[in-house]
Amino acid sequence: MKLIGIDLGGTNIAVGLVDENGNILQKTTTPTLAHRPNSEVLDDIAKCCFDVCKKAGIEITEVDACGIASPGICNSTTGVVERAENMHFHSYPIVEELRRRTGIKNILIENDANAAAKGEAEVGAAKGHASSIMVTLGTGVGGGVIVDHKIVSGFNFAGAELGHMVIVKDGRECGCGRRGCWEAYSSATALVRTTKEYMEKHPESAMWEIAGSLDRVNGRTAFDAMRKGDKWGQAVVDEYIDYLACGVTNLINIFQPEVLSIGGGISNERDTLIVPLIKKVRGESFDSTTDLPKTKICIAALRNDAGIIGAAMLGVNS
Amino acid sequence: MKLIGIDLGGTNIAVGLVDENGNILQKTTTPTLAHRPNSEVLDDIAKCCFDVCKKAGIEITEVDACGIASPGICNSTTGVVERAENMHFHSYPIVEELRRRTGIKNILIENDANAAAKGEAEVGAAKGHASSIMVTLGTGVGGGVIVDHKIVSGFNFAGAELGHMVIVKDGRECGCGRRGCWEAYSSATALVRTTKEYMEKHPESAMWEIAGSLDRVNGRTAFDAMRKGDKWGQAVVDEYIDYLACGVTNLINIFQPEVLSIGGGISNERDTLIVPLIKKVRGESFDSTTDLPKTKICIAALRNDAGIIGAAMLGVNS
Repeated sequence: MKLIGIDLGGTNIAVGLVDENGNILQKTTTPTLAHRPNSEVLDDIAKCCFDVCKKAGIEITEVDACGIASPGICNSTTGVVERAENMHFHSYPIVEELRRRTGIKNILIENDANAAAKGEAEVGAAKGHASSIMVTLGTGVGGGVIVDHKIVSGFNFAGAELGHMVIVKDGRECGCGRRGCWEAYSSATALVRTTKEYMEKHPESAMWEIAGSLDRVNGRTAFDAMRKGDKWGQAVVDEYIDYLACGVTNLINIFQPEVLSIGGGISNERDTLIVPLIKKVRGESFDSTTDLPKTKICIAALRNDAGIIGAAMLGVNS
Repeated sequence: MKLIGIDLGGTNIAVGLVDENGNILQKTTTPTLAHRPNSEVLDDIAKCCFDVCKKAGIEITEVDACGIASPGICNSTTGVVERAENMHFHSYPIVEELRRRTGIKNILIENDANAAAKGEAEVGAAKGHASSIMVTLGTGVGGGVIVDHKIVSGFNFAGAELGHMVIVKDGRECGCGRRGCWEAYSSATALVRTTKEYMEKHPESAMWEIAGSLDRVNGRTAFDAMRKGDKWGQAVVDEYIDYLACGVTNLINIFQPEVLSIGGGISNERDTLIVPLIKKVRGESFDSTTDLPKTKICIAALRNDAGIIGAAMLGVNS
């Protein structure tokens, strides 16, 4: 099969020609320039679709299906992006617009976190499993839920807001207006905040030397300090993984997926993150006292190409 | 259609002959006496099935389908109750055993909370809607999730443990071994605990007069005191609804169901519970700032017969 996957981001548009196993055959990118009129963004997306076909030596009419992973609330039934603030999309019929420009009949749209989860489910960390969850630890905590190969996005396509599950009632303020959301503790942004809090309390911490200054702290600072034997770096990482495990255990108790994979920037820590995470979750989850099979917890497989591949996989097994 | 629904509880077995609209045509009950050998319990269940048919003047061969709502972890694929401690079921092939005794071919098994949610979805509060959640506020906080008319119970049938979602990290101890589970704040048991805590701190509260003594406090004590103008009763109810709203909002952010219904003992408070609950959830949920349709939050419809009707509906639309 010849599939096109479109990863539509606030900064870049990435388009790939992908086979049914998730291999990217050709790829191209172009700046989004999101402040332009929507139609100009769509012109560039269409151009990228023609480009990847040309590079692969095929006609666009040979493309079996095309998927778009977009930020915001995407109505996958009507093909309309209901709302994506950073793209200035408001009730924008993106599928119809792209169909008109490319002639591809079978075009699907999905929220980017949901599409990434679908990619992991079909050709990534959860390949071969009917139910899975992908959690993305980035600027926020995003997520996608797959049950019976299908994306669970809620009746108004605004669900799977896994990061906006409160785990600390009346806790840290969250951008969504609630207090104590998982995102306020487990996003990269939250990790930076916690790192800075510990640094301010502990001027002797190696985190100062590693970061240079407070405004140069990033999601690796505490992990790097821990690797150098710094006890405050260790404390930040322990606290971070503790909150992460709390949310992951909640999701396992709610969904009992076969696989739960962790993606996003923080997942680059790989075993340093996942080994202690698994240990904590195993001690807490509802099934831990039974001899039932357990949810496999792992790092997501598709990494930077998750958007393209997930978008390309939208029509597979659904 | 002629359906049999079996509500298997630790105390009583209730069996009903039900039509496809969820009307109970005949009903019979018998004590479970759960300490007996499993086979004797099954003999009585079978006898009840024959009884309701006889009362209705039909042959058991005319029954189209039969459903069992059981406590514990029920494998709906194999028809085996993996584990139900209070019934002393361990890997018990209940469907096969009942089929042998009754001759009914089409028998399904499901966890009782999931079956109740299915009943609400098909003929109760969420009738006509493809996605819904039912939350039961009883001794614990139980729940069932329906997506696309299907029960979401996890790959090992131990999911939908909605009450074991932590909302207060490191909070109140929960029977499951975690701390701060929703159940530890929103079950009837938790409400009684909170009521007693307030009574001990406030000997002037009308709750003392209403309950008589600490060991006679129940889930109505604080609500009754509030209705008499007692400020501490009001405080208990406010706190209870605040935690309830936290968990409900989490579920809406995760699932975005069309309907979320509340059942169980505490739901007898009806508007006194649901009106302030809706107000709090509307202020917090992720979709509250959008013009998207909102989840309908309401009291469950099937009340005491939820088990029988839910069990009978297991084969409908699934």
